[in-house]
Amino acid sequence: MNYKLEYLTKLFQKTSKKGIENYCLSRLWHRLNDDTIKIIPQQYVNRHVDKYALTDVFFPQVKIHVEVNEPAHYESKERIEEDKRRKIDIERKTGHQVFTIDCRKEVNEIHKQIDDIILKIQSAIKIEKGKNTFKPWNPDEERNPIFWKGKRISIKDEVSLNNIEDICHLFNADFKKTKRGYLSRGGINHPTLDNLHIWWPSAFTRSGWLNTINSDETEIIESNKDINTRKNHFKEYQNSSQKRCAFFHYKDVLGITSYKFKGIFSVDKNKSNSKDGIVWKRTSDYIDT
Amino acid sequence: MNYKLEYLTKLFQKTSKKGIENYCLSRLWHRLNDDTIKIIPQQYVNRHVDKYALTDVFFPQVKIHVEVNEPAHYESKERIEEDKRRKIDIERKTGHQVFTIDCRKEVNEIHKQIDDIILKIQSAIKIEKGKNTFKPWNPDEERNPIFWKGKRISIKDEVSLNNIEDICHLFNADFKKTKRGYLSRGGINHPTLDNLHIWWPSAFTRSGWLNTINSDETEIIESNKDINTRKNHFKEYQNSSQKRCAFFHYKDVLGITSYKFKGIFSVDKNKSNSKDGIVWKRTSDYIDT
Repeated sequence: MNYKLEYLTKLFQKTSKKGIENYCLSRLWHRLNDDTIKIIPQQYVNRHVDKYALTDVFFPQVKIHVEVNEPAHYESKERIEEDKRRKIDIERKTGHQVFTIDCRKEVNEIHKQIDDIILKIQSAIKIEKGKNTFKPWNPDEERNPIFWKGKRISIKDEVSLNNIEDICHLFNADFKKTKRGYLSRGGINHPTLDNLHIWWPSAFTRSGWLNTINSDETEIIESNKDINTRKNHFKEYQNSSQKRCAFFHYKDVLGITSYKFKGIFSVDKNKSNSKDGIVWKRTSDYIDT
Repeated sequence: MNYKLEYLTKLFQKTSKKGIENYCLSRLWHRLNDDTIKIIPQQYVNRHVDKYALTDVFFPQVKIHVEVNEPAHYESKERIEEDKRRKIDIERKTGHQVFTIDCRKEVNEIHKQIDDIILKIQSAIKIEKGKNTFKPWNPDEERNPIFWKGKRISIKDEVSLNNIEDICHLFNADFKKTKRGYLSRGGINHPTLDNLHIWWPSAFTRSGWLNTINSDETEIIESNKDINTRKNHFKEYQNSSQKRCAFFHYKDVLGITSYKFKGIFSVDKNKSNSKDGIVWKRTSDYIDT
């Protein structure tokens, strides 16, 4: 199955516990009927320092969020007021638009509301296309290393690859050398550039290694749960001048794993220590492939 | 929530374990975009004496079945052959058409297949409408007793009501009299017609009572799991001339319960006995309300 189909089917499966939400969101998508439009489930939005919201779906190309409000949302004045505040918070904080589908209505009225939102999305897309700023959603093309080969890739390009083999392919590195028997190495040296290591740190623990990326993605902490391994690793890297081109391995909200380019990192000598591990800080947000 | 919305949301929820099936069927429905079209999940079709099939969805107004074939359907020659035989069996046995969506393809090709099926459904509807034989799907109207009041209802009308209160309303019977403390009676005498009992036998055991309807719906067996109750009941009814207007209580494949008119029944003296219970046989397939 290609990525787009897997992504879309998982997206609607994710909403299937809430029958009306599933019905409305699948209708919104199928009636929009344009698979160059990107749809993202459960978009995280900061409301205040200590408050956040997850909107049901988000259309990043036109900065529109859609919320499906089941009848329970209208059961109390407090809930209605809270939903209003939430919408205002999101719109103020992000500058995005938030549209809501009220599911207390009959089928035809629900359909009508969805039609109205579709018109708004389509009109926003028309504006983007008029400005030449609409970037079609082509995940299968963009997850293929051939698409990027020979280009300068930047973190803004949101380069996501399917697996380690594809990362190697992008840099003409020898994938076979990433294997040690049954184990996979955590990275491989760049085949031509000295002192540059191509690295795929994972958000999942692998052989005791644990990598965490901070929220603005400028720092990756590389640590190990074993204290001695951690100490030796600190000794080995504390004064290293190695540069690492990082593809962070993670699982998205739909359960699909990717390796996403996060930039070039160097050891932060001040922050690294044998207790927390080696702190890698971003020193560049692009690389030529 | 009205019935149509509950029905549709549950229908798509039911398919949500299979992501592609859910995606294809919801797309088929939303792109058809006509809520007077009835869509039925998991339609049972007899293939041979000892073989049956459940098709993914069925459009009864135009006698079209749609099957979503996930990639696994094409993994072996045997499976492909079996699917072909199945399709031929269903078409021969029912005279219906069966269309298949092949999910090995990419998003755009899957969409194209669905578009083609939609054209076929729409053209079949056009034909029905031209012959004046298209009956729009209006479940909320038809599940309201007011719709039927004063009319002759026949089993062909597929009259389904939501609850006992609505059955009483249809015949101007006093709903309050159906209650005995916390218990509900299994029926109530018709307010004006002598010897006619309005009956709502249930497919679920209630206070030991068990009712089963045979496959052609011409017989209802009324029994009780307690041997003495069954014996007394047989004694009371074996020579009864009572007529019963039956609304059979059942849960459909989506988990929605209904009371569906099944005709007028009388005791079958030959078939009834104290071991199996009272056998009620259909003596009329209509009643004037």
